[in-house]
Amino acid sequence: MDTTAFEQRESTVRGYCRAYPTVFASASNARQVAEDGTSYIDFFAGAGVLNFGHNNPLMKDAMIAFLERDGVAHSLDTYTTTKRDFVEKFRDVILEPRGMDHRMQFMGPTGTNAVEAALKLARLATGRREIVAFSHGFHGMTLGSLAATANHAFRQWAGVPLADVVRLPFETAPGGDTAVADYGAALRDASSGLTPPAAFLVEPLQAEGGVNVATAEWLRQVQDLAHEVGALFIIDDIQAACGRTGSYFSFDGMGLDPDIVTLAKGLGGFGTPIAMNLNKPWVDDHWSPGAHTGTFRGQGLSFVAGAVALDYFTDDVLMNEVKTKGEVMRNRLQRIADAHPGQRWEVRGRGMMQGLDTGDGAFAKRVQAAAFDAGLLIGPCGTGGQVIKLIPPLTIPDDDLELGLDRLDKAIATAMEGD
Amino acid sequence: MDTTAFEQRESTVRGYCRAYPTVFASASNARQVAEDGTSYIDFFAGAGVLNFGHNNPLMKDAMIAFLERDGVAHSLDTYTTTKRDFVEKFRDVILEPRGMDHRMQFMGPTGTNAVEAALKLARLATGRREIVAFSHGFHGMTLGSLAATANHAFRQWAGVPLADVVRLPFETAPGGDTAVADYGAALRDASSGLTPPAAFLVEPLQAEGGVNVATAEWLRQVQDLAHEVGALFIIDDIQAACGRTGSYFSFDGMGLDPDIVTLAKGLGGFGTPIAMNLNKPWVDDHWSPGAHTGTFRGQGLSFVAGAVALDYFTDDVLMNEVKTKGEVMRNRLQRIADAHPGQRWEVRGRGMMQGLDTGDGAFAKRVQAAAFDAGLLIGPCGTGGQVIKLIPPLTIPDDDLELGLDRLDKAIATAMEGD
Amino acid sequence: MDTTAFEQRESTVRGYCRAYPTVFASASNARQVAEDGTSYIDFFAGAGVLNFGHNNPLMKDAMIAFLERDGVAHSLDTYTTTKRDFVEKFRDVILEPRGMDHRMQFMGPTGTNAVEAALKLARLATGRREIVAFSHGFHGMTLGSLAATANHAFRQWAGVPLADVVRLPFETAPGGDTAVADYGAALRDASSGLTPPAAFLVEPLQAEGGVNVATAEWLRQVQDLAHEVGALFIIDDIQAACGRTGSYFSFDGMGLDPDIVTLAKGLGGFGTPIAMNLNKPWVDDHWSPGAHTGTFRGQGLSFVAGAVALDYFTDDVLMNEVKTKGEVMRNRLQRIADAHPGQRWEVRGRGMMQGLDTGDGAFAKRVQAAAFDAGLLIGPCGTGGQVIKLIPPLTIPDDDLELGLDRLDKAIATAMEGD
Amino acid sequence: MDTTAFEQRESTVRGYCRAYPTVFASASNARQVAEDGTSYIDFFAGAGVLNFGHNNPLMKDAMIAFLERDGVAHSLDTYTTTKRDFVEKFRDVILEPRGMDHRMQFMGPTGTNAVEAALKLARLATGRREIVAFSHGFHGMTLGSLAATANHAFRQWAGVPLADVVRLPFETAPGGDTAVADYGAALRDASSGLTPPAAFLVEPLQAEGGVNVATAEWLRQVQDLAHEVGALFIIDDIQAACGRTGSYFSFDGMGLDPDIVTLAKGLGGFGTPIAMNLNKPWVDDHWSPGAHTGTFRGQGLSFVAGAVALDYFTDDVLMNEVKTKGEVMRNRLQRIADAHPGQRWEVRGRGMMQGLDTGDGAFAKRVQAAAFDAGLLIGPCGTGGQVIKLIPPLTIPDDDLELGLDRLDKAIATAMEGD
Repeated sequence: MDTTAFEQRESTVRGYCRAYPTVFASASNARQVAEDGTSYIDFFAGAGVLNFGHNNPLMKDAMIAFLERDGVAHSLDTYTTTKRDFVEKFRDVILEPRGMDHRMQFMGPTGTNAVEAALKLARLATGRREIVAFSHGFHGMTLGSLAATANHAFRQWAGVPLADVVRLPFETAPGGDTAVADYGAALRDASSGLTPPAAFLVEPLQAEGGVNVATAEWLRQVQDLAHEVGALFIIDDIQAACGRTGSYFSFDGMGLDPDIVTLAKGLGGFGTPIAMNLNKPWVDDHWSPGAHTGTFRGQGLSFVAGAVALDYFTDDVLMNEVKTKGEVMRNRLQRIADAHPGQRWEVRGRGMMQGLDTGDGAFAKRVQAAAFDAGLLIGPCGTGGQVIKLIPPLTIPDDDLELGLDRLDKAIATAMEGD
Repeated sequence: MDTTAFEQRESTVRGYCRAYPTVFASASNARQVAEDGTSYIDFFAGAGVLNFGHNNPLMKDAMIAFLERDGVAHSLDTYTTTKRDFVEKFRDVILEPRGMDHRMQFMGPTGTNAVEAALKLARLATGRREIVAFSHGFHGMTLGSLAATANHAFRQWAGVPLADVVRLPFETAPGGDTAVADYGAALRDASSGLTPPAAFLVEPLQAEGGVNVATAEWLRQVQDLAHEVGALFIIDDIQAACGRTGSYFSFDGMGLDPDIVTLAKGLGGFGTPIAMNLNKPWVDDHWSPGAHTGTFRGQGLSFVAGAVALDYFTDDVLMNEVKTKGEVMRNRLQRIADAHPGQRWEVRGRGMMQGLDTGDGAFAKRVQAAAFDAGLLIGPCGTGGQVIKLIPPLTIPDDDLELGLDRLDKAIATAMEGD
Repeated sequence: MDTTAFEQRESTVRGYCRAYPTVFASASNARQVAEDGTSYIDFFAGAGVLNFGHNNPLMKDAMIAFLERDGVAHSLDTYTTTKRDFVEKFRDVILEPRGMDHRMQFMGPTGTNAVEAALKLARLATGRREIVAFSHGFHGMTLGSLAATANHAFRQWAGVPLADVVRLPFETAPGGDTAVADYGAALRDASSGLTPPAAFLVEPLQAEGGVNVATAEWLRQVQDLAHEVGALFIIDDIQAACGRTGSYFSFDGMGLDPDIVTLAKGLGGFGTPIAMNLNKPWVDDHWSPGAHTGTFRGQGLSFVAGAVALDYFTDDVLMNEVKTKGEVMRNRLQRIADAHPGQRWEVRGRGMMQGLDTGDGAFAKRVQAAAFDAGLLIGPCGTGGQVIKLIPPLTIPDDDLELGLDRLDKAIATAMEGD
Repeated sequence: MDTTAFEQRESTVRGYCRAYPTVFASASNARQVAEDGTSYIDFFAGAGVLNFGHNNPLMKDAMIAFLERDGVAHSLDTYTTTKRDFVEKFRDVILEPRGMDHRMQFMGPTGTNAVEAALKLARLATGRREIVAFSHGFHGMTLGSLAATANHAFRQWAGVPLADVVRLPFETAPGGDTAVADYGAALRDASSGLTPPAAFLVEPLQAEGGVNVATAEWLRQVQDLAHEVGALFIIDDIQAACGRTGSYFSFDGMGLDPDIVTLAKGLGGFGTPIAMNLNKPWVDDHWSPGAHTGTFRGQGLSFVAGAVALDYFTDDVLMNEVKTKGEVMRNRLQRIADAHPGQRWEVRGRGMMQGLDTGDGAFAKRVQAAAFDAGLLIGPCGTGGQVIKLIPPLTIPDDDLELGLDRLDKAIATAMEGD
């Protein structure tokens, strides 16, 4: 394993390579294979990107065919046949069945750019400045989205104040039960010193923030307050959409009607970059042509693979699998938690995003290391990294899922010994 | 040509599709072919991304092979064999021959993310806030980089103040001859009310800003002042590097030693996203692991094609072609300008980025439309879009280059008639 | 009554003259006499400045003697015998009996300047930026203090964002019972997205905000949280100190130990400007000489009259009167409220600051107008001016107090008829 | 000399008392007498407040009479006969003879409050944010005005960024000859990245900044640019007006028509606080009643003494004296400079504000100390305090002026020995 070039020439900022000290050579579905031949089960899926597995064969075939026929790989925001296929399919498979009249906006192909575009649009549409964002929320690394991200571990690097964000506790955080109501009361009080915000930005299922699950009731309360005070209701579904929770959006069936939905990660299917916002037409009308640009808005390979991914949502097969596998994951985590009653571990999650909150970041880091040694890739999240988050590909074979959970079990035991 | 889905379901923000009202189906080297069979010569190259042509066959072969062998397409910032190949090759082909000891940082794969990371790092390394940026500069659309972008057409959509940027005129703008010296004098004056900046951020060749060419002397003056006052000297080479000017960097041979260089666009070779900063080690040491993250940092396909692109820089063949073709472009533009002496058109540029400043955005827009009708894709730039910028693929065949210039000639004549 | 010069040449911004449309010629204790001979009972006392009455004879004699002996009327912050008398007396009469080791800081002689200096010092002492301020709080009109002021009616004129303030509901505002606890919980949560503040800035008795009375328990909770998170606890006692509530400070006897106390208004006794902060020594040590300056810091006439004012606090005579008269005021307001049970009027206050919350700013304005016609000066406060605030001089003769309350009674009746 | 109370109980921030280590007991015209009997000649005049001398007998008589007749000492912004006298007299003596149609706005009675009000109004009137202010400018200590103040020695204590100010070099600073023209050119360039400012804020004669004298030509250039770009032209005449330069305003006779003039310091005549802005009617109309308030806006004693001060401007007697005495001061300083040719000392000033720029703050501090020992009060100013500024009362007797200059001569000689 030769990592000299990385050590000498890659930035100190590199991170995951330190938790997974190997060099990967290939990957397939829920497996990543290092150049030394070791095969790892992947419960991290590229931080929630690879919902349909590494090198999904259907996508791979489509991408190779696209390359061979000289498809337009890079198109800015010109029209291409490939993009049209994607747009039509997303309309037909996702939007129309839900009665959603949103428009699709493509921007720089990263989640942070999607959030930046959403915040710009919210400010334009309302003529206001402040964004209400929630504790433990994660929305990206560029200056506008970082302002909305809660975690001090990321915010401390900004170098300038992160402004124009009002912070409320998320439903599951201390004070989260009353905060939205109190904030609403304050907004109605002309001497509160508060100005009405441009938007409320919320993840229904906080992934990076620690697998925190909001209820439909609370989300509706947020939406209702937003609309009462003339603000937009924005759902950041970048990590939890595209089937992760057992339906396309993480907020399906909750009776919500967001003004903007931000999407990225799993949208492209294969791991190539793409981001897309869904804007209500009246909101979208505040844009002018070219108001928010970006070089890599038209990614042919992402459109091709992303269109294949949408096929998984034309019937219930995969979503039913997600529900079943999600139960398997949850039950196993619960058994683990139950086996250590003194630790007060908590299991949380929805569908195939399940977390074990160990309350101890150092311990979770030891679990991650032991898991790696055992051939399993996992990524801690939440404050101080204390939550072990499991987000395998939705397409993971049952055997690999079980084997991965066994390895997790073992890793936890190993980490406990280290105490 | 069916564009219904776009018109009904794509955001109002879409832009280039309005200038090029067709649906592209395929592309090869300097040609894009619409689904109606029309073949366009591409003098825009994906806004400067496709230096090596659409669907470069060497890259395409490498990418298909990579897909077929289940290479790791998405790797966050873990180590992969593919990434190692790229890193080693960039070191060997680009950095070491120039004696550059910079480290490579990968971040979200867009230019704006590269600029955001550079500004963060500059602020961390200096403990200061303000960035000196220049008139007509373009640095991206997210809040941190947009603050550094000068053009009001983009800045007006921010919705919040764009702060912590000091603006100086670029060398070629009014006052640009004395501004750096005057600013330096003010910084040395303890009662000037100025605080020393964290960094100077400059494009040696402003592309989007209107094909404005800085001299080596002026750039050295900026660098010297930066270092005198303890600020970083950052070169944004996102659009002008990767061979565009006849050498890898647009600042090669100028006696400059930037603390950070931002790269994106052409770096991936094929049009798939990638961005990379080059940080001097002492600067880079201010990062901590994971301080600036992003989902799409490890793009296997971009590494594969990008490594192929680096082969063009192991000898002088392509760079000599760039010089020759650049002369052809420049001479033709000069002939056009000379043919209309009353218009005071100006020709500017370096290598294969050449611009014709018409001083009239409405006219340039008519030229763009007439060119499209004649089978040529061009993109105006500069204030009000008054500069016709030519940035064909560096690999454009001579015949296509000549034919494209003929079509431009005709389009200008057509646009003149419309006056 | 000739007001031509005012109407033609004074700024549109003038305000109180519109509510009191006359020209005052002289004033004595609780009476102001217009040039037409009308004598008004003053329940407003110069917005809480004239605690010891207009033209207090003891002060007047001292001031005339000072002028006649060529005392130093304007001394910047040089030492004068007059200033020394004041400083020693304030130490002996106010600070030492309370065991307060605070230092006195004189700055520009207005309340807003006192608040600005306090916020600067808090930021210096903590190296932090944000100030926690409360809904309905009033702290001044300059940019730093205006940021802490809650009322939209004042904030809207800033012209720039009012930044670096975190807003919590005051104890009596909606959500005020839980907000401090919830905010504390959030500060303890590393992923809350909050940064610890430099200071908590609070008025124990909000005057301008609507005569809102905080409990000792709540104030201690604020102080405890401030100290737990390393922030300063700042009391703005500008309107409520100097005997208004029946003791020198409005927070006497509450078990509080503020890091900074801001004083102004009544401190000079006679209505000439002065402001003074009381800083704990460890906090004050963060200043350097000359760090916060101002031309009018050394006001001889204010020191002279202010020293006379301190004589009122060497025994209990005046403070006992305040308690008695405060009861008279409160009882009368309560009778008024009780007489109109359907209106849900609320009586609030402490000592000789008592308010009748009518819930209706337009009505309160009519009361003010009717009171003026009846020979009584009052000033509405609170959101939309809905609270009729009574703050007569503490030295008001009993007869005038009763007569003023009678006139108020009548004015309310008149205003009710207008409904 | 007992300074115990100050040392133990006054804030560390106290400043001038350190340069003048004594306790003053009385003062008359240009003399201050310490309690030990030492008589000092005052060339500092309360930092430019006491233009008409300490305890001006005409004012003193008027103030005592006012007190004895129970005049309204504190009136907020209600109408009083005393205020009317002042307003009418200012109109008749100052405004009408100059054809100025400005309105008078009274605010918190300090210079910093005047500047804050002016900046608010400029932002309201233009809907813009940024204020252009100049290097070496001094405009006050509260957050809004401090942002416009240039000197780092004051700015460093803000604790938060001082925003929304664009800084240009003053005419006499490095780059000052071209900066306004260059800035104008940049504002006309739509891709400059600049937004047009709300106002230009300038002192025609920078006092605190180092006795820097602007020419009429340069001031007209600033005014013309302001008006060309739709910004206000604001003159801060707080220290240089009220006769200091030999006419009422420092800009009289320069062909200027400022949109706002800020006044304070000498306006009250006696050293009691007052501040007043002069607003062009169309600008002033952007205020609403009560938009900018303040407790101490109506200072009877300041109106009384200020009205007496205006008598000095009904004929040319005092202004002619100012010109004569100013020449005496300037000639003496020039002789001193000429006597030390190797030092490159520079004499600057207008009327009775004259400065000797020694280029050496430590030396100027020694001069100040030696002058104090010799019985002369002076205050250094400018960067590092290197300029010895002479601003005696305009009413100083010729003998005291000569004697003071002799003492200065001696102090300089003493300080030179210390080298």
